[in-house]
Amino acid sequence: MGGFCEDFSPTVQCGDRRYQVGPAAVGDLRAVVELLRDDPLGTGRAGADLGPYQRAFHEIEQDPRNFLVVLRDADDAGGVVAATMQLTLIPGLSRGGATRLQIEAVRVAESHRGLGLGTSLFTWAHDHGRRHGARLAQLTTDKARPEAHRFYASLGYQTSHEGMKVDLSS
Amino acid sequence: MGGFCEDFSPTVQCGDRRYQVGPAAVGDLRAVVELLRDDPLGTGRAGADLGPYQRAFHEIEQDPRNFLVVLRDADDAGGVVAATMQLTLIPGLSRGGATRLQIEAVRVAESHRGLGLGTSLFTWAHDHGRRHGARLAQLTTDKARPEAHRFYASLGYQTSHEGMKVDLSS
Repeated sequence: MGGFCEDFSPTVQCGDRRYQVGPAAVGDLRAVVELLRDDPLGTGRAGADLGPYQRAFHEIEQDPRNFLVVLRDADDAGGVVAATMQLTLIPGLSRGGATRLQIEAVRVAESHRGLGLGTSLFTWAHDHGRRHGARLAQLTTDKARPEAHRFYASLGYQTSHEGMKVDLSS
Repeated sequence: MGGFCEDFSPTVQCGDRRYQVGPAAVGDLRAVVELLRDDPLGTGRAGADLGPYQRAFHEIEQDPRNFLVVLRDADDAGGVVAATMQLTLIPGLSRGGATRLQIEAVRVAESHRGLGLGTSLFTWAHDHGRRHGARLAQLTTDKARPEAHRFYASLGYQTSHEGMKVDLSS
């Protein structure tokens, strides 16, 4: 995901293409869900009915500590969603009362890969975290995605922890 | 951390000792911070000045999606804090719009280990998550804590992900 974009937040210039970073609107929801589904690991996880996504979107939108980010193609009239991620600010007592920036659901659309948009998105996300007092950013990434690990390592992320999950619905 | 406690939430009976699970009060703050410090990995991370912890505590307390849990010794007049964890409910679009239960800062006091309090605390936490619509619980655990991995695996957690973190303050 290395690339040649120049970052003039909230605008990202990649060669002759321009993108804008900002909060997702309800009109972006279908595009974001499609991005989450267009993934070998995500396909089995995301449903077709938009209802549950709309409820989740409103919960995210109304919570000042949650932020659904989209990167839009600024030169496309429809404002095509090229990438997305969700940010959550978690206040906490560990590490001297440090706020954490939790990052989930990162996707870059197939047709916009290789430009460095992932790096631009993370630069924006880390700045968002710092502006809100976060001293640490964290994420988990499926062990089946070695290329993602290399990308996060290139951004300074350390693989210091195991990411463990359990299904609560069974 | 296997043990012989019987769980009558919010009371946990372990042999002849009784504990109660509930939200931390501001008066528990010093005890919780001490628990976070009384750890080979936590010592270097937690400071002595309570100010930053008080600010973080109030942020947690005022946020309906964050919950600082303590397990108190019910037979001790001072209500000694025997264990703690922080829970965060994260709404999200992934996995069909599933809410996640994020678990951080888990500690059981040295003098209360071996009774199964960790298991009781997690049983309570998972129920809390389900009551609030969470379909998945997740945590990261330092790769230097193999005994913690075994404990989480005994609760059904899968080590499916890498847990990656980056310092935002440097």
